[in-house]
Amino acid sequence: MRTLEVDLGDRSYPIYIGSGIRNTKSLFDKAIHGKQVMVVTNETVAPIYLDALVTMLGDDYQVDTCILPDGELFKTLETYQKIMTRLLEARHNRTTTIIALGGGVVGDMAGFAAATYQRGVPFIQVPTTLLSQVDSSVGGKTGVNHPLGKNMVGAFYQPQAVIIDIDTLVSLPSRELSAGMAEVIKYGLICDSSMFAWLESNMSELMKLDSELITQAIYLSCAAKSDVVSQDEREGGIRAILNLGHTFGHAIETEMGYGVWLHGEAVAAGSMLALDLSWRMGNLQNSDLERSAALFKAANLPVLPPKEMTLDSFVARMSVDKKVLDGSLRLVLLEKLGHAIVTSDFPLEIFNETVLDALEAVQ
Amino acid sequence: MRTLEVDLGDRSYPIYIGSGIRNTKSLFDKAIHGKQVMVVTNETVAPIYLDALVTMLGDDYQVDTCILPDGELFKTLETYQKIMTRLLEARHNRTTTIIALGGGVVGDMAGFAAATYQRGVPFIQVPTTLLSQVDSSVGGKTGVNHPLGKNMVGAFYQPQAVIIDIDTLVSLPSRELSAGMAEVIKYGLICDSSMFAWLESNMSELMKLDSELITQAIYLSCAAKSDVVSQDEREGGIRAILNLGHTFGHAIETEMGYGVWLHGEAVAAGSMLALDLSWRMGNLQNSDLERSAALFKAANLPVLPPKEMTLDSFVARMSVDKKVLDGSLRLVLLEKLGHAIVTSDFPLEIFNETVLDALEAVQ
Repeated sequence: MRTLEVDLGDRSYPIYIGSGIRNTKSLFDKAIHGKQVMVVTNETVAPIYLDALVTMLGDDYQVDTCILPDGELFKTLETYQKIMTRLLEARHNRTTTIIALGGGVVGDMAGFAAATYQRGVPFIQVPTTLLSQVDSSVGGKTGVNHPLGKNMVGAFYQPQAVIIDIDTLVSLPSRELSAGMAEVIKYGLICDSSMFAWLESNMSELMKLDSELITQAIYLSCAAKSDVVSQDEREGGIRAILNLGHTFGHAIETEMGYGVWLHGEAVAAGSMLALDLSWRMGNLQNSDLERSAALFKAANLPVLPPKEMTLDSFVARMSVDKKVLDGSLRLVLLEKLGHAIVTSDFPLEIFNETVLDALEAVQ
Repeated sequence: MRTLEVDLGDRSYPIYIGSGIRNTKSLFDKAIHGKQVMVVTNETVAPIYLDALVTMLGDDYQVDTCILPDGELFKTLETYQKIMTRLLEARHNRTTTIIALGGGVVGDMAGFAAATYQRGVPFIQVPTTLLSQVDSSVGGKTGVNHPLGKNMVGAFYQPQAVIIDIDTLVSLPSRELSAGMAEVIKYGLICDSSMFAWLESNMSELMKLDSELITQAIYLSCAAKSDVVSQDEREGGIRAILNLGHTFGHAIETEMGYGVWLHGEAVAAGSMLALDLSWRMGNLQNSDLERSAALFKAANLPVLPPKEMTLDSFVARMSVDKKVLDGSLRLVLLEKLGHAIVTSDFPLEIFNETVLDALEAVQ
């Protein structure tokens, strides 16, 4: 097992990464301070992992469960309200601990519930997808979607601990494994060119879930994100580089309808748009584009947007994105491989060309 | 104008108290950092104060408004969701500032909206009721009610500034003025016996809204609360003494239906129950009880619970109260006039006698 300490002053917490550690009770005991536990999970994860967790904790705590429908479609205020009702009906008090057992949607909603139940109770993340292990484990972002925009309702709220059991990846559909790998590749692109090269060498074994390599990939990803987040907990500045491909990606996800494209797939295609734009600005070599596309493809990820999109739909969806500051569109671009910047300093024509050429290529 | 600095490290903020200061634009300018402002208010306050505020800020900012129905009945997740929708429809971004113009319900909901819109945006409180001026101005508590309990959904979130214009009290119904005075008296009871004596000497002029005296009463109240909150921002310990009368009071409010008894009225009757219990424990003199009852009465407040309550309804309502820790009922009691403690160390028979005697007295 490897341990990474996320350094956020009095909100610091450990991330444990290892094989089988969802069954290591002492990791949970260290993070639970009261006598009550509410495990929030979903219909897909519950049949595989819930019983063992409840049984393990049941001797020492009042353990209740809240099983949500699976999917981004249910990441709503209505589902959030159901978690609140469940907590109240089971008479959980302010010393309860919420455990999020599942992927990013479960983590975001359970985390937002923890942030706002009786004005905040502790929570523990047990992420079971690669995406949630490398992305939502670090950073404290919690929230739900609003019909008018993704993640528009939420809070910054840090967990007591994150327990990443790599064995849970065995039950993950391969499409979701790929989607998670998009974020892993992203860390190489934005802040670590040696990690990028390491991923190029090991992607085929990583996709086969080699234990040692996957532990290392998750560790490097969490460390990269942790390093950025520690500098900027509430996303005032540098943290925004983590959103490489996300502004384009959100446009794709929203336009296609939540859940049609997986988040990671949209991030992969969105990242390639951002890289393409960076290349047109003269910041990247043609070979950087080719290497990046090859790496995404090796992880079975799309490198072009869906053919249903248009330039207009991109522009319309991107202008309500929450990363818009005072009306000027800010994007994460690469200055070179392994170094991202946030800028609104690009000609609109180049933006338009980038999108139109990608849409032409996909037709 | 008087200024009180609430000391909470990097979340510190000023409270301004004075006559006519809702029209002092520079106070707002200092607290607004972006270009967008959303004024959240209600149908009762809007016709009196909204236009002037919008006109004053309209030259420098994009000012939008969100007018809620008036009353605790509407302090719900549904109303909260309407604020979110309004913000998104008017395309407010993460640099927007939310201004809460109104009483405690508006402040709690606008504050919770600010805490959770795009994971947190700045807000300014302009409280227009005495209760909100002396209570919700300090402490950062925001939230909404759930059908199963009051304030069960919320966050701790501090404003950029609180602007208290005592002139707004002129438009306040006298019953609400009294309700606010219940909290003022509470500060004397829990932590300041000289303030208590000052209130005894001045209550009749305070109820007539003498400018100098009311400014002083608000200042003393905010200073008392600020002193307690600075020691315990997230209510882990001493902050709980601010809830004198609130556990009994919440039971009354919930049992009677939100809004039938005003919060301050329930707190007055609840405080007298807590004082009565403290007296039965041997901590107060009979004269302390008499002085307290006389002071509440001088502010036209009830000193007994409603006759519709029963011992069972008190117990049932108090056992889901969020101040319950691990099943043992904790109450705020007085050790002496001007000094409160939080304790679960009282015989259940004395609790029962206190409630039953009060209910008998009110029949």
